[in-house]
Parts: sequence; structure tokens; C-alpha cells
Amino acid sequence: MAFINDQYLELQDSYLFSTIAKKVNEYVAAHPDKKIIRMGIGDVTRPLVPAVLKAMHDAVDEMGQKETFKGYGPEQGYSFLHDAVQSYYKSHGVDLSSDEIFISDGAKSDVGNITDIFGNENIVMIPDPVYPVYVDTNIMAGRDIVYLDSNAINNFCPMPPTDDEIAPDLIYLCSPNNPTGSVYNKEQLTAWVNYANENSAVILYDAAYECFINDASLPKSIYEIQGAKECAIEFCSLSKTAGFTGTRCGYTIVPKALTAFSVDGDAVSLNKLWLRRQTTKFNGVPYIIQKGAAAVFTEEGQKQIKENIDYYMKNARTIAATMDECGITYYGGDNSPYIWLECPNNMKSWDFFDYLLNEIAVVGTPGAGFGSNGEGYFRLTAFGDADNTVEAMERFKTLYKK
Amino acid sequence: MAFINDQYLELQDSYLFSTIAKKVNEYVAAHPDKKIIRMGIGDVTRPLVPAVLKAMHDAVDEMGQKETFKGYGPEQGYSFLHDAVQSYYKSHGVDLSSDEIFISDGAKSDVGNITDIFGNENIVMIPDPVYPVYVDTNIMAGRDIVYLDSNAINNFCPMPPTDDEIAPDLIYLCSPNNPTGSVYNKEQLTAWVNYANENSAVILYDAAYECFINDASLPKSIYEIQGAKECAIEFCSLSKTAGFTGTRCGYTIVPKALTAFSVDGDAVSLNKLWLRRQTTKFNGVPYIIQKGAAAVFTEEGQKQIKENIDYYMKNARTIAATMDECGITYYGGDNSPYIWLECPNNMKSWDFFDYLLNEIAVVGTPGAGFGSNGEGYFRLTAFGDADNTVEAMERFKTLYKK
Repeated sequence: MAFINDQYLELQDSYLFSTIAKKVNEYVAAHPDKKIIRMGIGDVTRPLVPAVLKAMHDAVDEMGQKETFKGYGPEQGYSFLHDAVQSYYKSHGVDLSSDEIFISDGAKSDVGNITDIFGNENIVMIPDPVYPVYVDTNIMAGRDIVYLDSNAINNFCPMPPTDDEIAPDLIYLCSPNNPTGSVYNKEQLTAWVNYANENSAVILYDAAYECFINDASLPKSIYEIQGAKECAIEFCSLSKTAGFTGTRCGYTIVPKALTAFSVDGDAVSLNKLWLRRQTTKFNGVPYIIQKGAAAVFTEEGQKQIKENIDYYMKNARTIAATMDECGITYYGGDNSPYIWLECPNNMKSWDFFDYLLNEIAVVGTPGAGFGSNGEGYFRLTAFGDADNTVEAMERFKTLYKK
Repeated sequence: MAFINDQYLELQDSYLFSTIAKKVNEYVAAHPDKKIIRMGIGDVTRPLVPAVLKAMHDAVDEMGQKETFKGYGPEQGYSFLHDAVQSYYKSHGVDLSSDEIFISDGAKSDVGNITDIFGNENIVMIPDPVYPVYVDTNIMAGRDIVYLDSNAINNFCPMPPTDDEIAPDLIYLCSPNNPTGSVYNKEQLTAWVNYANENSAVILYDAAYECFINDASLPKSIYEIQGAKECAIEFCSLSKTAGFTGTRCGYTIVPKALTAFSVDGDAVSLNKLWLRRQTTKFNGVPYIIQKGAAAVFTEEGQKQIKENIDYYMKNARTIAATMDECGITYYGGDNSPYIWLECPNNMKSWDFFDYLLNEIAVVGTPGAGFGSNGEGYFRLTAFGDADNTVEAMERFKTLYKK
């Protein structure tokens, strides 16, 4: 008799985006003449850049000729893309060896699948509010989760626990943060790296939004912090960096110096375990996509994607300036595409959602959807069309400008 | 203190293909003038067909325009590709609903990841010899494995156990089989479906080689068998069908009628669990690749891929005819791209490998690498160049033709 993984029954259904869609559809049906501006979903809108398009067209042509056709590639990615990622890290002062880099179909897959190589007895620390994948994948594995309060008191940059009774083995950090837009500085991240090394914990560091960091003093990679290669795995993605949300390519760094313990107390290389996981359960990213991804890291590609990043960050500044004008407290928007605002007049997240939708036909994401500490907050994203963003903020000012 | 998944320490390193590579490299170094013909690896060599190339070029262009750019798609695949797969199944008499079809980056990923949704207390039955992923992914999960003898006595088509003491909960079947080339007929597959339904077991059916079935009486899908939707998940792939080994697209069918049990004894929909797994840990296949995949199922695409399949099957017939001429017992080659031959003169698999390499510079795969019942057997593949295949078989005849 076949049994299911009962842990799946512990998962809560996420109604966040489906509820948003339902409410928006109802509004549209009732107000067919109103122009809705969507600033809720974290998906990009700018097309792929020319360097990427050319590389992919060329790769498609290669796949059509016997002499250049590519069959199975290395599960961990082609060396041309390893070299490109390696150079990119080098540009912010991080030396990686090629076999520390694993090309994947995106950060979500790797963030989810990385749980395979860890024992289920690990206690997992996850910030609240947070990207829901960290929580759900650990519930699937049946691990105990302790939540780390991320809130206005700590500027949504929570620091390591000082209570010795809390002893997490795996720690999720995301910087720049989704949904709060907050970014750890080097001092804060150093405290986390030291904490992890002192406690033999492993940090699972989600750097999917690193490209939005403007401030050169802020770390783009956890490996800019001394000791991080002994305690951290880093996930990164081209989804937001280069508009790859529908093109699917990311990379995960598992340093060779990083170990965790067997039940017998032996230190085991996590790089070797992840390689074994990926070679067994994954067959690599399409050659065509890897060629497109490599083009992102060329001089031309970097210049072109920077234009898109600048476009989005101009939207972020438009939103932030509006919050300033309206006297609304917010986080993010300077080194992040997310603006995390305190709902005015102590409104609850969903009430504020309804209010914005009904009054000005602007859609955002209620903070309560990301965790209990998100209640009373609201996320706006900078990934929309520039004119629409300006228009949405003009409408916003009609409600709140002093 | 972070702990690893100790089950990974139970995995055996597979030295099969690395040992082959090492032996071949040594031979090349010693005999730089000899032309080696490789018939060992199961990778395709024909380029992608024009219909697929055109669809992917068009999709790349779409990604470059704001109006047609695609961001996040549905994790389970676009409806245009669901429709195409649905029509394909319909053409061999199987009705599927769209939400029973999950598009993936290939059968290997899904065969590996499907283990997530099952409890670790399940007893798993796996044929021997076999594709190593079934074994390794279940060792990673810590499940008990019972092996099912696949051998000359049962024509490498092993049937359900008659011993009541063996009670598998999950059963892996692969037809056409890798590595043995054997194919279940409808009667045999019906026996398996009945066995699974009587025992509330789930069959994990790997149909990755279905396109090589010529004999219209043989089932291409397990769902051609009555009752299979109540007991089977089917994995399929375009890797061999359309040369997608480096392009990466497959599909997995999880019927809505299929359930397994919670610890409390409730029947739970596996379709819902797999949807939850995929939406949580996967972000879908690249839009460009899905467009290429959909082109495979068009009338033009089907005609073009058939030419490649015919090309490979002509190789298979060349190999099979040579075995016939040499009086060597073999399996497969008629409805499968693999020829599984009994090593002549009672040679062991690796001895035969060395003999072929040294005498005629032909490389195959020793059967012992696929499991204990593979000892004394050898796999040749039909995926090579036609002229090379003919030449290899001419050389073979110099050794064995009576």
C-alpha cells in the first residue's frame, strides 16, 4: 500500500495571489472603464536584452547543425558559463573555483532542492516576513522551524539570536530582502557569519536581488565577508538581473570549504553532496539558455541589463519619493526593487489593499501574506511600466499628500 | 550544528561511464591512428528538426519585444504545450485532462523529484538491471528497496511477484527498457496494473523510449491499459523522441484518479501533491523551450522527428542483423534503440568491453554496470552515425561471423 509524504498535509495553502486575483477581477467586472495599475506581482516586464537574444539565436542555429549540435551537457553547467559567473564574482572581490558554481534553472528550484542534502533533524531559522518557499520546503521535509522576527525595531534586518536556548542549524537569509527591501551591511552580515561559524550552522543566503544594490559599501555576495565560505551557500538568479523569469537560469555557490556533520560526527563536504544530488536528479539547463545567460555577463550584456535595472530603479525612486511626499514610513527602494511601506492610519494590510484598489485602482501586495510580522505593511514593486508607475503615484498622492 | 542527510553516505559512486572514458582514453593514447567508434553512451547525435528550430527562433524574438515578452509562466507548463501532449496521447487512444499533464525539464528530474511526495516507509521494487536513477534517489530518501530479477528466463520482462511475502508499495517499470531494449506487451502490462490495483501499490512508469515502438500492438503508454489511471504515474521525455537531451523538456502524467494513503489511512490525490511540489520547488520550463517542444507535436514536427527515429532504427536493424549473422543472442533493437546482447563465449561484461575495444576499437557499455543481472551482457546503442554503425558492425563480423 503506497503512502504519501504526510508532511504535505501540514502545508497551508497560500491564497495570497489567488485572493488578489479574485479581488482584482471583481473590481474589473464592476468598473470596466477603470484602468488598473498592477504593482503587486514580483515579475519583470522589460524584454530580454539584444546580447542575450543574439546569443540564443546563435545557439538555436548550432542545435540545428550536426557538427555543432549539443546533447547532454554537464549537469552542473557548461564551463563557458562557469567562467562568466566566476568573473562576475571576481569583479566584486570574490574568488570562486569553477567547481563551486552550479548552474540551475533558477533560485527557486535550488532553494527548494537544497533541503535534500540536509538531515531532517536540523532546526531551521527563517525570518518573518519572508518568501514562502523557505517555509514550505522545510515543512515538506518535516523540520522544526523557528521564526526570526523581522520588524521595524530591527529595521527589517534581524540579527543573530542572543538567547542560547535558540540553536538553529540552518539559517535562511535574503538580502536585498523580498518582501521588505532591506539590505544587510557588511557589519551585520559579519555578525551572522561569525554566529554561524561559532555554532557550526549553515546559512542559506538568497542573493537573487543583488543586482539592485547601488551602494558600493553594501555586500552583493555573502562571500565578501571573511569566513563565509566556511558557513554559507549562496543562491543567485538571472530572473530579476536580466529578465529571466520566463527564461530560467540561476546559479548556486557551494564552497568546497563548507561542511556539515554526519550522525557519526564526521565533517562532510556539502559541495560533494550537492554535486551528487544534481547529477542524480537534474540534467542541466538547456544549452540555448546557458548561452543566453553567458551573454548577460559580457561587457555588452552588462551594459544592456544595466539600462533595464536603471529603468526599474527609477520606478523605485518614483515610489519612494511619493512616500516621502506623503509622509509614509517605508523600507527599501534604494538598493532594492521593493518598497515596503507602513499602511497609513494603522490600516491592516488587506484593508489597505481594498482601499487602494477601490479608491485609485492600484494593486499591491498585502504584507500579511508574507508572515505575521507583515501585518500592517504593504509591498509595491518597481517592475512595472514607468508611465504607469508615475500615474499610480499621482493617484496615490490624491489620497495621502499632505 | 548542521547535519547532512546521512542517506547520501549510503550511495555508491557510479564508476561506469568514468571507467569507460578512462579505458578509451588509454586506448587512444596507445593507438593514436585507430578510429574509435562509440556505441556506448545513450545520447542522440541528430540535430534538432527545422520545425523546432523555427519555433524557438520565433520564441526568442517574442522575448525581445515588450508586447510579447514572457515572464513567469505556469509551473506546470503552458496550455499550448498541454494541448499538444493531450492530442498526442489521444492519438494512441488515451484521454487525459490538461491538469493531469505536468511539463518538466526532463524525465530524470521528475523521476528523481517524484520521490518527494511519497513517505519514506514505502517499500520500493526496482528491476535489475536498471537505469541507476531509480535506485539512487530512493537510497537518498532512505527507503527499503527490493530488486526484481530481469533476466533471460523472463525475456527481460519481469512479471509481478507471486510470493505474498514481497509487498512493494512503489514499483518502477521502464518500457521500452533501458538498458535491455525489452518492451512489455498489453497482456504483461495488464498483469502489472492489476497487481498494483489489488495491492494499492503505485507504478512509476518510465516511457522515455515510447517513440521507438513500431509494433502497433505494443502499448506506448501504460494508460492504454484499463485501470492504469488508478495506479500509475507516467514519465516521458522529448530527449530521445526529438533530440532534446541538451534542450531539456519532458512531461509527467499524474492522473486525478490516482491516490495514495496518509498515515491515518485517508486516500490523498497524488495529482494535488505533485502540483504542490512543483509549484513550490520549480518554476517551469523556459518559454522558448516549451515553444520548441510544442512544435514537435505538430504535423510537420512529427514528420521530421520520424525521419530521425527511422535513422536511428535503421542503425538498430544494422546491429540486430549483425548479431543474427554472428549467431549472438540479443534483446531489443526492434522497438527500442538499445541492443542488449549476451557476451559471446560466456565472457564477462568488462572482459568483452576490453576485447571489443582492443580488437576492433568499438566502444559499448558493459551490462554489469546496470546491476548484477547485467553481468555477461552488453549494451549497444543505435544513436550513432549511420556510416559509423555500419563500419562498427563490419568490424564486429570479422570477430564473430560464422
